[in-house]
Amino acid sequence: MEISLEELAGLIGGKVAGDGSVMISGVSGIREARKGEITFLADPRYDKFLETTQASAVIAGSIPEGETRPLILSDNPYLTFIKAVEYFVPDKNNYPRGVHPAAVVSEEATLGENVGIGACAVIEEGARIDNGTLILAGSFIGKDTRIGENCLIYPNVTIREEVEVGDRVIIHSGAVIGSDGYGFAKDGDVYRKIPQVGNVVIEADVEIGANVTIDRAASGTTRVGCGTKIDNLVMIGHNVVIRENCAVVAQVGIGGSTEIGRGVTLAGQAGVAGHLKVGEGAVVAGQSGVLRDVAPGTMVSGYPAREHSQARKAFASLQRLPDLIKKVAELAERIRNLEGDEK
Amino acid sequence: MEISLEELAGLIGGKVAGDGSVMISGVSGIREARKGEITFLADPRYDKFLETTQASAVIAGSIPEGETRPLILSDNPYLTFIKAVEYFVPDKNNYPRGVHPAAVVSEEATLGENVGIGACAVIEEGARIDNGTLILAGSFIGKDTRIGENCLIYPNVTIREEVEVGDRVIIHSGAVIGSDGYGFAKDGDVYRKIPQVGNVVIEADVEIGANVTIDRAASGTTRVGCGTKIDNLVMIGHNVVIRENCAVVAQVGIGGSTEIGRGVTLAGQAGVAGHLKVGEGAVVAGQSGVLRDVAPGTMVSGYPAREHSQARKAFASLQRLPDLIKKVAELAERIRNLEGDEK
Amino acid sequence: MEISLEELAGLIGGKVAGDGSVMISGVSGIREARKGEITFLADPRYDKFLETTQASAVIAGSIPEGETRPLILSDNPYLTFIKAVEYFVPDKNNYPRGVHPAAVVSEEATLGENVGIGACAVIEEGARIDNGTLILAGSFIGKDTRIGENCLIYPNVTIREEVEVGDRVIIHSGAVIGSDGYGFAKDGDVYRKIPQVGNVVIEADVEIGANVTIDRAASGTTRVGCGTKIDNLVMIGHNVVIRENCAVVAQVGIGGSTEIGRGVTLAGQAGVAGHLKVGEGAVVAGQSGVLRDVAPGTMVSGYPAREHSQARKAFASLQRLPDLIKKVAELAERIRNLEGDEK
Repeated sequence: MEISLEELAGLIGGKVAGDGSVMISGVSGIREARKGEITFLADPRYDKFLETTQASAVIAGSIPEGETRPLILSDNPYLTFIKAVEYFVPDKNNYPRGVHPAAVVSEEATLGENVGIGACAVIEEGARIDNGTLILAGSFIGKDTRIGENCLIYPNVTIREEVEVGDRVIIHSGAVIGSDGYGFAKDGDVYRKIPQVGNVVIEADVEIGANVTIDRAASGTTRVGCGTKIDNLVMIGHNVVIRENCAVVAQVGIGGSTEIGRGVTLAGQAGVAGHLKVGEGAVVAGQSGVLRDVAPGTMVSGYPAREHSQARKAFASLQRLPDLIKKVAELAERIRNLEGDEK
Repeated sequence: MEISLEELAGLIGGKVAGDGSVMISGVSGIREARKGEITFLADPRYDKFLETTQASAVIAGSIPEGETRPLILSDNPYLTFIKAVEYFVPDKNNYPRGVHPAAVVSEEATLGENVGIGACAVIEEGARIDNGTLILAGSFIGKDTRIGENCLIYPNVTIREEVEVGDRVIIHSGAVIGSDGYGFAKDGDVYRKIPQVGNVVIEADVEIGANVTIDRAASGTTRVGCGTKIDNLVMIGHNVVIRENCAVVAQVGIGGSTEIGRGVTLAGQAGVAGHLKVGEGAVVAGQSGVLRDVAPGTMVSGYPAREHSQARKAFASLQRLPDLIKKVAELAERIRNLEGDEK
Repeated sequence: MEISLEELAGLIGGKVAGDGSVMISGVSGIREARKGEITFLADPRYDKFLETTQASAVIAGSIPEGETRPLILSDNPYLTFIKAVEYFVPDKNNYPRGVHPAAVVSEEATLGENVGIGACAVIEEGARIDNGTLILAGSFIGKDTRIGENCLIYPNVTIREEVEVGDRVIIHSGAVIGSDGYGFAKDGDVYRKIPQVGNVVIEADVEIGANVTIDRAASGTTRVGCGTKIDNLVMIGHNVVIRENCAVVAQVGIGGSTEIGRGVTLAGQAGVAGHLKVGEGAVVAGQSGVLRDVAPGTMVSGYPAREHSQARKAFASLQRLPDLIKKVAELAERIRNLEGDEK
């Protein structure tokens, strides 16, 4: 399926700048786009990828400096891009609505309108599934759990009892929400379980990756804020609070009771110990081990994590250390000679 | 639901010290407790949290030094606390007993008394589920696997064939027990699979977190000892032996054939290479990479992991390295001057 | 079950060297083997384990230097070993063929001959399962996904729509193939989802561990090459390409669009950032953080990862840094003295 940029703009809205005859065959993000595809720019921080992207055209708010590629100009590049996606990619989320005959839905559960429940999904008593939400095959929704409107719960997800999930939340396969926190008390040599009697609240527009685990609170609530996006295999401990619009990349671990401020980025495989605060807008580099609070707006890296430019300088200097050791030995020898000469 | 400390002590046992009129509305661990909640102290190592806990009252064995909060004194603070939990939190584990009509239980499986098997759970031939155990929805119990008494297997757990699980074991959703170990032999460029024909033994009172994986032995047994508590997303390789009462925190990885002694703590995201021994009572700090045996009772950190106080000193000194490099250059200059003066 | 080495050689082929009367009771890999077991040698890089293995006999291509243990000599030690495995270990993969009555198979799915579909497995429309393949209990195969011949898909695996899986692929429980990539664009403070419209291709003879996640491409294909073996809890991002015969050990993470060359080893808990190339035959040490391309045939370690021998030297020297700081202070003092004497 190919279409000229001119024709595409006619279908999705926006004004062509440059050669409207270029043929477009698909859509992609700016870093993944290949020749023939159209991408978009909604944030100036992505401008730098214009140099390397292989996209044949770009949807943007204005003409980026020096850009020679054909463009579609739009007041809201992201929404125009989504229209392009809808044109090129038939909706794959057209899962059937209604309750599959092999689903197991408690008579005491409440289903909204236009809900779809897949084969072998299990919905327990007291659960409530709001309008337009899909619970796909093999997923489990525990007692008294509430799933908001227009959510998409992929196959084989587990959401235990008394969890609250907001509207438009996407949860990928294998994720476990509401498992017991890791709470034990030592009694001599023996660990005694502290019952984990709190819950989990996932706010609206959150996305949760495959095989993520989010533990329920010891008491109170483990919370993931509006718009936060969590990648695969992330671990979120009990009583953690993550605020709005954070990016939590794959295999990150967050210890119990830690609070992550708004707009924070935790890069892949980073770990944040328990009972800490990571301030609004902070960035934690990949594989960092955070053992102290992180100030708002700062970037930290390394183990134990420190301010990034210092950590980087220290690590760079480490490479010079073997030579430095030799040099100091040589200086010591020269000092010995000077001291000998003095006598 | 609120109750005075005095009344609570009457219900759960123990003697009030201090103001018995303080109102209690819930229970929690000492680090997570909030105002109005009661917590407990069973181990002197947690005394330090008394300073920062927001709990309104504490169950303890004796009056901690300097403590002014109201207390309930008890000979066994943990058991008294569990009674408080039972008072405040209605038992959420009252899952139905019997076999759900949508469960799939082989005719050649053996079920004890008072067992509960959830919807879409699958129990294969030769499996044996002992008295009082719950296998919740969607979980899989393989051929000839034996699950002990009063176990709680949460939804969507996979326990493959020939695994032995002791009494009172808790396994959280998404965990996989008995998957093949990572065993291959190189044949030119090609990896050839070495069949993994051993099993897994999980001893009594173990707890296993969500999405943990524990591989079956190549031959022989992968073993998790009595009372060991494993957090989410931990990886335990084939032929690993973990002894009694260990704490294995989230996202830890343990390489094949490694032996972890009694009472060891492996903190979050630590990795232990294969074919090693970590001695009794040792502590491995978070994110450490253990490449050699760890002596009993020691604490190690860093990559490669070394004795903790040395590793910490080395890392602290690293921060001073950029300045040290400058200083050595300056000293070299001064030595050159001295040498020049000599001539 | 015990048998003499002589008799065993008669059954599985090969020629005995040494004492054929030694009794053999089982099989194992060279590092895991215990007394009474027979193991094999197919790669000279494993010769070093001959010193420490407890195996009572070895299948090998020729007599290793200095080896005094009884041997079975064979032109293809691996195949001879597999025959020994078949003798000692009854085939545990004799899962029933046909469609279990509690499986849910779309009428628009296509099943080959001798296929087995377990209880509560769900096969969606347009899916195709080729001859001899087993899809065990609770697994999900999405729309238009194709699974090749003689594959073994363990219980509770999720393979989403439009994925292609080659012949003889083994996928362990809890693995998720084809989940959405982590693709978002910033629109002010808000992350907007970039639809992930590509697919995943798993080539022949791949093995995928428990609870692994492999994301579908943003557009195009995420690919795992022929013969590559992936351990548990590994994360593979969207548009990653892994070439043939790689070893990806547990808890590794690979960022989006990265390319891993043929025969690469990524050791446990290593992380590779997105948009990089790791050259053919390279080795990335455990827990390394790779932030730049890795040249073919090199070994890297540390964070950020560098050439291994340099990184090791730098880390070794770090342990000497506290002493070096003291020594430099002492030299400075001695220089001051020399300078003072001069005046």
